[in-house]
Formats: sequence, C-alpha cells, structure tokens
Amino acid sequence: MHAPSTPIDTPALLLDSARMMRNIADMQQRMDSLGVAFRPHAKTSKSPQVVQRQLEAGARGITVSTLKEAEQFFAAGVDDILYAVAIVPSKFEHAGRLIQAGLRLTLLVESAEGARALSDFGRTRGLVLPVLVEIDTDGHRSGIAPDSPMLLEVARAFSHDAQGGAELHGVLTHAGSSYGLRTDAALAALAEQERAGCVRAAERLRAAGWPCPVVSVGSTPTALRARALDGVTEVRAGVYVFFDLVMAGVGVCALDDIALSVLCTVIGHQPEAGRLITDAGWMAMSRDRGTQKQAHDHGYGLVCDAQGQAIPQLAFNDANQEHGVLQWTGDPGTDLARRFPLGSTLRIVPNHACATGAQHAAYTVSRPDGGHESWPRFNGW
Amino acid sequence: MHAPSTPIDTPALLLDSARMMRNIADMQQRMDSLGVAFRPHAKTSKSPQVVQRQLEAGARGITVSTLKEAEQFFAAGVDDILYAVAIVPSKFEHAGRLIQAGLRLTLLVESAEGARALSDFGRTRGLVLPVLVEIDTDGHRSGIAPDSPMLLEVARAFSHDAQGGAELHGVLTHAGSSYGLRTDAALAALAEQERAGCVRAAERLRAAGWPCPVVSVGSTPTALRARALDGVTEVRAGVYVFFDLVMAGVGVCALDDIALSVLCTVIGHQPEAGRLITDAGWMAMSRDRGTQKQAHDHGYGLVCDAQGQAIPQLAFNDANQEHGVLQWTGDPGTDLARRFPLGSTLRIVPNHACATGAQHAAYTVSRPDGGHESWPRFNGW
Repeated sequence: MHAPSTPIDTPALLLDSARMMRNIADMQQRMDSLGVAFRPHAKTSKSPQVVQRQLEAGARGITVSTLKEAEQFFAAGVDDILYAVAIVPSKFEHAGRLIQAGLRLTLLVESAEGARALSDFGRTRGLVLPVLVEIDTDGHRSGIAPDSPMLLEVARAFSHDAQGGAELHGVLTHAGSSYGLRTDAALAALAEQERAGCVRAAERLRAAGWPCPVVSVGSTPTALRARALDGVTEVRAGVYVFFDLVMAGVGVCALDDIALSVLCTVIGHQPEAGRLITDAGWMAMSRDRGTQKQAHDHGYGLVCDAQGQAIPQLAFNDANQEHGVLQWTGDPGTDLARRFPLGSTLRIVPNHACATGAQHAAYTVSRPDGGHESWPRFNGW
Repeated sequence: MHAPSTPIDTPALLLDSARMMRNIADMQQRMDSLGVAFRPHAKTSKSPQVVQRQLEAGARGITVSTLKEAEQFFAAGVDDILYAVAIVPSKFEHAGRLIQAGLRLTLLVESAEGARALSDFGRTRGLVLPVLVEIDTDGHRSGIAPDSPMLLEVARAFSHDAQGGAELHGVLTHAGSSYGLRTDAALAALAEQERAGCVRAAERLRAAGWPCPVVSVGSTPTALRARALDGVTEVRAGVYVFFDLVMAGVGVCALDDIALSVLCTVIGHQPEAGRLITDAGWMAMSRDRGTQKQAHDHGYGLVCDAQGQAIPQLAFNDANQEHGVLQWTGDPGTDLARRFPLGSTLRIVPNHACATGAQHAAYTVSRPDGGHESWPRFNGW
C-alpha cells in the first residue's frame, strides 16, 4: 500500500483494499475447493462495502453477531443472514420485525427452553422460523456437546404447524479455541475435531428423524487449516478478511496479508526516556492485547513507517486514551526527533482487527491510483 | 439504583444519575475548599448532559482530549475548553476554525518547535492563541521536566504581535502514574510532587519574565488526595464523575460510588463447566483489564444482580466479541439455570469507565421515578 497522497486526519483506520481483496479471493477459493458454501462473519468489518465484495466473490449469505448487524446489512441488500449468537426472548421482537420485512434470518438456540420459546414466538407471528442448534466441539464457550442427551431434548422442543413455529434446520459450531493454537498440525487436528463433532451431532439428529440439512462450522484458523470437510455444508470465518497480528501469531497469515492499520501522528518526544508519543492511544487501537500470550507480544500493535514497513526498534508498550507511547529499543544514540519529526506519521498494525475496527466510524480505503475513499462502518446494538 | 421499570435492550450502558450527581458535588466541594478552579475532563463521558451538570455544579470550563470533543461540546454551548494533548500542525486548521467561531480554546505544546509553529499559525490567522506548556512531574508520559533548560527554550519560542501569534498562558501537568498507586499516603505524596513540580515550572518562567497565570494539575486520584494546592490555579479530573473498579482498587472510591454498569442478559448455561453466558462480551465492556495488576483482579468486570448487588461467586473471566463468560465459583451443587434463568438480567460494573463508555452510543439514565431516559454520547475524532 502506498501512503495516501492527500493528508488524512489522524488517528485513522486505513484499509488496504488490495490485500483485503486477496484475502477474500483466497478464502473463497479454498472453500470452493473443499466443496462447501462460505458464509463470512460480518462482525469483523461491520461494513456494507466489505460484505458486498465477499458476496461478489461467491459467499452465500453472511453471519452476524448482533441483530443490529442483521438490520444494517439487510438494509444494505443482504437477504440471507445467520445470527450466530443464542437468541433470548427479549430479542424475539427485533428478529421478528426483520423476518416479517423479508429477511431470511436463521436463528440459534442451545437449550430446549430456547427452542420452545422460539416455537411459541413463531406461532404468535404466523412464521416458521429457521433455527440451528449450537454444538460445543472444543469446550470453548457455549453449545451442547455432540453426544449429549440434551441434543435430542432440544430437537424435540422445536414445533411448528400451520400457525407457525420454529424448525430445526441444522447444527452450528465454532472452534474458538483455535485462536490459542500455534502449529498447522494442531490447527488441522482441531479443524477435524470441529468438523467431526458437528457432523456427529447432525447424524444423531438425522438418526432420530430430523433432516438437519445445515452443518455449519468455522473460525478463521480452522477454516484455513482444515484438510477435508466431509459432511459440512457451510463454513464461517470473520477476521480472515483483514487478518491481524493475532492471526499472524497463530500462523495462518503473514504480516503482509494484514489489510488494516491505524495511521497516527508523532505529537511528542521524550529523548531522555527514548520515547515517542503519538496520537493513537488505546481509543484508536482498542485495549485488545491479544498477542500478550503469543510467542511475540506486540504490545498495542506493530509500529510501521507511513509506507507500512515495520520498525522493530519501536515498541508500542503503553497507551493512554489519546496517547500512544512508543519505546525506542534501537541505538541509544539515535536522534528520535530527527528521525521521527513532530508531525510525521506512522502506521500501527493491530493485534485484533475486530476490536480495533470497533473504535472507528469509517475505513480510509486506499485506491490503486494512490487516492483514498471513506467506507463507513457501524457499531452498537 | 433501582432496576429500570421498562425493558431495556441489552447490552446497555446504565448510568446511575444519583451517584453521578454525588460524585460531581463531592469533587466540586473539595476543589472549592482547596481554593482552586475545577476544569473536569470530558473525555470520560463525551456527553453534553453530563458536562452541563458539572458546569452547573461550579466547574469553570472543561478539558478535552480530542478536537472532536472540543467541537461537540462547543456546539452544545461550552465556551471555555482546554485541549490537553500536545497539538501538531496537522490539527491547527481544525483548532483555528473553532477559535474563529468564538470558542475560547486553550492549546498545549511540549516543544519549542510546537510553540514556534503555533505562533506562526496564529499570525496567519490574525489570532493570539492561548497556550500552556506541558510539564512532566512523574515520568508518566509526556512533557518537560520542571527544571529542564528546555522549559525556557520553549517559552522563548512563543511570539505574538499585532498580527497575532501564540501566547504562553501557563503550565499543565498530569500525574498519570497515580493510577498505579494503592495507598492514601502515596497518593498524597504524588499529589504534592505534581503540585510542586508544576508550580516550580511556573516560578521559573515567572522569574524569567513570563507571567504564567495558569498552573493546571490533576488526575482523579491526586485531586482526591491532595492536602494542599498552593500555587495551583486549576485542577483537572475525568473519571471521578462515574468512578470505576480501577479507582476503587486505587482506593479513591467505594464500590457504591460507581455510577456506570452494563446491563446484560443471560443467553446460555454450561452446567457442567459451571458457566453462564451473557450478551455482554468485550464489545460491550471493552478489552480494558485495568484491574489485572491490582490487588483484586475483576476480570472483565464485577458481576452484580439487576439491582446492582455484587455476586462475588460469578467471575467474569473470559469475553468474546458478543459473549460474556461468567464462571460460577460458589457451591458446585447450585442449579445455575434455575438461579440465573435464560433471559434474566445482570449488571456488570466496569474496570475502566472511559473505555467501557466508548463502546456505547448512549447512556441509559435512571430517573428517581424508576423510569429511564437516553443521553447520547459520541466517539471518534
């Protein structure tokens, strides 16, 4: 990515569209070759422009983590959305409004109580709601174990008739513990565990009489390291679209695959302490310290020059709300004020694209001609 | 605070206005009794409604950390604002527009280069810009040491004439290292160090011929533990308005002084793991883990029931983007799904009010009648 040709107010969230387009194409091609549909998770970008490119590349529908995301993307023309967080009754009305407006919105439950409540709600609205059951394949967070007796209990709690209800459409899992792994072999093994557990749950349901057409799995690391996806119908992944330092630390991308960075300005020097101060503090980076437990702790992000070349001697060790504190670890004789003058710009590659993105209202997107444009993103619920 | 009487979409940022009003009154009274003006830092709330109450209680002007804050609060009627981050040339135009529109905006520099550039800019605009010099009294972040020869060099770099320029109005310091202290004695000592260093810088400037009318100091912990503020003209503090778990850990507030919490809904149970899942993940709480190094690590926040009563057996150990993972540490025989049913609500007290606030677009404010209203807040730059 070239440095933008016109000044940008800092801090700003830069998006390298060439890298993003490559990430989108590579993942779609991988999913095509594995013979599964791909349903990207839009919680990473929260941007209609990004999602449009994922759909144009071949994605079939999208995944969201909030009903606000569903609402915003539906308004932007996306008509097939999976809300991949277990829904609770207080959110039924919101979901119902979207479905009645024409959105194909698939919901998620992980309990018999949830399935019953949703069936009742569907009946009051005269709708048959499509629902997946969340499966826990790695003890990471939520869902029902593939072999749990609870699984069939949940399936039995679904009901629908001519008046409406909720219908079991399949199973979904997310092997989120993949973020803690470091080797391709471990990731491939977890991808297989994720696949096998989810397929096993689907088979148990089918054996008990439910057709269970959807088997949905995924996380960026497992999607990129799965060797086969037999029995899986769709894969979900989010952060692959931008990648970040955490994903580089997991080993599923290179640093030059990372499409996001935060442009900042040098606002001060502490020559005796060997420090630079910038205007990108934690408000611009987020407080995400996702690389803290990885082999390489990047602090609040990897410091690069304005062209995106890493400056390994500058460690982003500390951040206040609107101040980034960069520690010089190179030659102590370096004149920092000369090398990084007041008003000069740096770029910071983020630990976690989803978290850093959420601190900003827009992407400043590089164009091939060296100019840039702004793509809005939304936040909130 | 009573639980709101009408349902609120979760996750939501609740503001207990009675606690906030008490925090505002207590700080103002303390500043009045110490004989100094008080200029609250609005970066914590980013809310015109909150700032209006601080001004009504006696604050004289406000402090901001971004020019967007200056712009938004000026639009809301605040006419005396201190931008307490060293300004760089790329932000001059923005500041100039606000000043020409009638805002009394005081700026900050920490270098001779900054003072010269600002003087030149003032001249091009026909304005004499009021500027403070940042003093470093605790090695925390930025500024010039009180006894540094650089201080007079910076002062000499200011210039103004009939055409305009920039005028040295005084000195400013922020003893941010106070957040790392734990005892009243240590805080009182740091407050005295902050006061003495800043006053010393002002005296050096006065001895060299600059009047230096403003001596501005502050952080919430030092403001609350200073024993005397001789020579100080104004104090700044931000987070006191809401307080948070970090401030409770520092020892400058009690848990029931904390005015902010995040209302969330139980969306799942993992009975075998002894876990509850809620819809307040890190997107609702922020990734701020400010209590991690304190005596009591609160994880992603202190879990309370819907009325705000702490539930010490629920540890908020892990968070995904839209999932909070609460670990039950009480009696293993407890039926979690019965005690915390699907759809029931909890409240999470945040580690860091500034960071958690920034994840939300509005405060849901309790009214004495049990109802609630929404106060917008803004983000971004």
